[in-house]
Amino acid sequence: MVKEYIEQNQTRFLEELFALLRVPSVSADSRFKGDVRQTAELVRQALLDAGADHARLYETAGHPIVYGEKRVSNDAPTVLVYGHYDVQPPDPLDLWNSPPFEPTVKDGKIFARGACDDKGQFFMHVKALEIMSKKNLHGCNLKFMIEGEEEVGSDNLAPFVKEHKDLLKADVVLISDTSLISLDTPSITCGLRGLSYMEVEVESANRDLHSGVYGGAVANPINILSKMIASLHDDQGRVAIPGFYDKVHNLTTEERAEINRAPFNEEQYKKEIGLEALYGEKGFTTIERTGIRPTLDCNGIWGGYTGEGAKTVLPARASAKISMRLVPDQHPNEITELFSNHFKSIAPPSVRVRVKAHHGGEAAVTPTDSKAFLAASSAFQEVWGKKPIPTRDGGSIPIVALFKRELGLDTVLMGFGLDTDALHSPNEHYGIKNFLIGIETIVAFNRHFGKS
Amino acid sequence: MVKEYIEQNQTRFLEELFALLRVPSVSADSRFKGDVRQTAELVRQALLDAGADHARLYETAGHPIVYGEKRVSNDAPTVLVYGHYDVQPPDPLDLWNSPPFEPTVKDGKIFARGACDDKGQFFMHVKALEIMSKKNLHGCNLKFMIEGEEEVGSDNLAPFVKEHKDLLKADVVLISDTSLISLDTPSITCGLRGLSYMEVEVESANRDLHSGVYGGAVANPINILSKMIASLHDDQGRVAIPGFYDKVHNLTTEERAEINRAPFNEEQYKKEIGLEALYGEKGFTTIERTGIRPTLDCNGIWGGYTGEGAKTVLPARASAKISMRLVPDQHPNEITELFSNHFKSIAPPSVRVRVKAHHGGEAAVTPTDSKAFLAASSAFQEVWGKKPIPTRDGGSIPIVALFKRELGLDTVLMGFGLDTDALHSPNEHYGIKNFLIGIETIVAFNRHFGKS
Repeated sequence: MVKEYIEQNQTRFLEELFALLRVPSVSADSRFKGDVRQTAELVRQALLDAGADHARLYETAGHPIVYGEKRVSNDAPTVLVYGHYDVQPPDPLDLWNSPPFEPTVKDGKIFARGACDDKGQFFMHVKALEIMSKKNLHGCNLKFMIEGEEEVGSDNLAPFVKEHKDLLKADVVLISDTSLISLDTPSITCGLRGLSYMEVEVESANRDLHSGVYGGAVANPINILSKMIASLHDDQGRVAIPGFYDKVHNLTTEERAEINRAPFNEEQYKKEIGLEALYGEKGFTTIERTGIRPTLDCNGIWGGYTGEGAKTVLPARASAKISMRLVPDQHPNEITELFSNHFKSIAPPSVRVRVKAHHGGEAAVTPTDSKAFLAASSAFQEVWGKKPIPTRDGGSIPIVALFKRELGLDTVLMGFGLDTDALHSPNEHYGIKNFLIGIETIVAFNRHFGKS
Repeated sequence: MVKEYIEQNQTRFLEELFALLRVPSVSADSRFKGDVRQTAELVRQALLDAGADHARLYETAGHPIVYGEKRVSNDAPTVLVYGHYDVQPPDPLDLWNSPPFEPTVKDGKIFARGACDDKGQFFMHVKALEIMSKKNLHGCNLKFMIEGEEEVGSDNLAPFVKEHKDLLKADVVLISDTSLISLDTPSITCGLRGLSYMEVEVESANRDLHSGVYGGAVANPINILSKMIASLHDDQGRVAIPGFYDKVHNLTTEERAEINRAPFNEEQYKKEIGLEALYGEKGFTTIERTGIRPTLDCNGIWGGYTGEGAKTVLPARASAKISMRLVPDQHPNEITELFSNHFKSIAPPSVRVRVKAHHGGEAAVTPTDSKAFLAASSAFQEVWGKKPIPTRDGGSIPIVALFKRELGLDTVLMGFGLDTDALHSPNEHYGIKNFLIGIETIVAFNRHFGKS
């Protein structure tokens, strides 16, 4: 019955999603502020259209949070659905094969910024609500909290959660913002990495200089920054910031063996992203490097002349964005401070260094023996005919730790994306099959959890 | 008489220079192609107005070369004046206090891109021609060759020179594109560094990746590029490319002592560019580091997300512009090849590296005992009341070696700029006093050389 409803309405479901995808809700860039708000309004209306009892916008110091509810029974458990309607910036624009904010279907996939992360994923919950409302299938009370600042660190979510503990009372948090191993191998994420995100600037002279006149006698901020960045890893690929690994929990041989049991084809992995060889911390597998080990990556670098041709400038400054993925017990604030102090300490006296912290987020491990996890597992078994594999993901959803701390709630990470969906990249996409089977699985989860 | 003529006409001289400065003749950027040509036309007309017998544009594969002549006598020596009417790109625009192509006078200085390098300097020779024509003061036959590609490597000058050896026959080349020690301490440049300019790209995956999903397992091109750049210097500040110093001529203790005799105040030098400490090759003074030692500097770097806020991207590629200043006997082609081979050899197998050479140029040492040098020295003595000090400059004027090789001509580098004129930087400027006294000194040079 659910499957049939989805089949009969899939064209409309997609059209509704496309309307959301057309609005460039880029939270990182203030020029898109109006679009972000317009998207929030669309989400509110979509919740009401799907059968929510009420839905409204809560203002924050940044972009608004959309909150909506559907109450079915005082006896039923309550599920708090979290998602985000903001998206990453679309740059570099010239690498997109179709416009990022004009959703385009190709090979059964929807190409658009936010198609998977996270508009396409949270919208499955909205459509599941519609089905449960229309078909009277409610097994749980539903609360929706869809925010607009996930891609910039959810700065205003913690104050909101702290202030509205009653409103957000629930039995579990359900989030679709992660990936499956594949459509053949369903999985549920039960571990996420944390994040510490820094911006650094190295400044030398008080102005750009002529590299002929001054070159050789004045510190070049690009060369110095490169040297400083290079020194952040040792020759084993480990992060060379004193204290960085102090709180990293080393898994047992058994735990590591368990994690490495997930199906993984290294040749296929390399081929898919066009690499001859992988690169990472010595002594760990790719699954471990991306799941249970912390990292340090430059996300951007800039300085000097970057235009066409040659300009013999000795630039005044160079900058980089550097982020670290963290594992449980590595606290982002502590790591941010370790990084700042270390980075400043390695600068030669001939330059000035500025270090600024962007948002951070805690790592999280979610239980695999809770009622909600078991309900999710049953839902997969029912719809997919297969038991899902628990996995550790490399990405960060910092609010998982927040919900545990402030609301005492565990989270179930029931995501339907794929690692190959090009999140945060040009040509982000989401499989139409993933979108539709996701809706079906969410409805099944609600039935199983409602009965538990 | 000359001084008076300059005083009476200085307002007009400046207005004429401003007209040249208003046209953005940025040779590196193809969008300015029309402006470059317009500037060439203005130069041609200025030569005719100043009394040249004829002047025309020679087409090249790139921007045109302006050539003009004034013949006074078959017995007089011939001076070939070289200059360039193209300019560096004006970026970063936001650091200019006045628009780069709207010349603005402040504190007795002309602020504009090209004010000193080299429009303001070659134009002194045009005005000297006017004075000599009007006042019948010609001591030498004059040939002018003003090109439009100096800032992008003078690629089309060598073919032109080779093809027009008869046209360019002369007794000496005279160039004003260098600096004085100060208005109190006149100097003549008699050594210049060469240049090798490279652009490199490090590529990892076939697309930008999510730093959470892939971070830790995939080579980050920014981190790798930083590491590769860092390895290009050893801990003594020496360039760590095998063979780089093989042809570097080590000066004798006496030669070094002579060079270090030039007046130099390190505290003032640091203060002027806003630095607490200098930085460079161990065992050498600042004058040596910028004059007689080769260098390696990054001129630009870019990769990943460089916009506002945070984007957790693991970028597909990162690039840098890297240039090396060379000393006599280090051949730019050889150094370019050494660099390319070395840079590719240090790349890990997990990335692909591309290396591209921009223009290069040979270092040069000019004689200090030639008739022309002595005439220049006398001209300074006459106009400034002081003997000029011979210096080694850090910059590159690659065509000095070309003129020696192809035309058999020595060059006299009689420049009137200052190291503090912010060449290639925002707020480039040229002192009005330098401009006017330069014209007077050039007229004096022509009289002295004509008599020699």
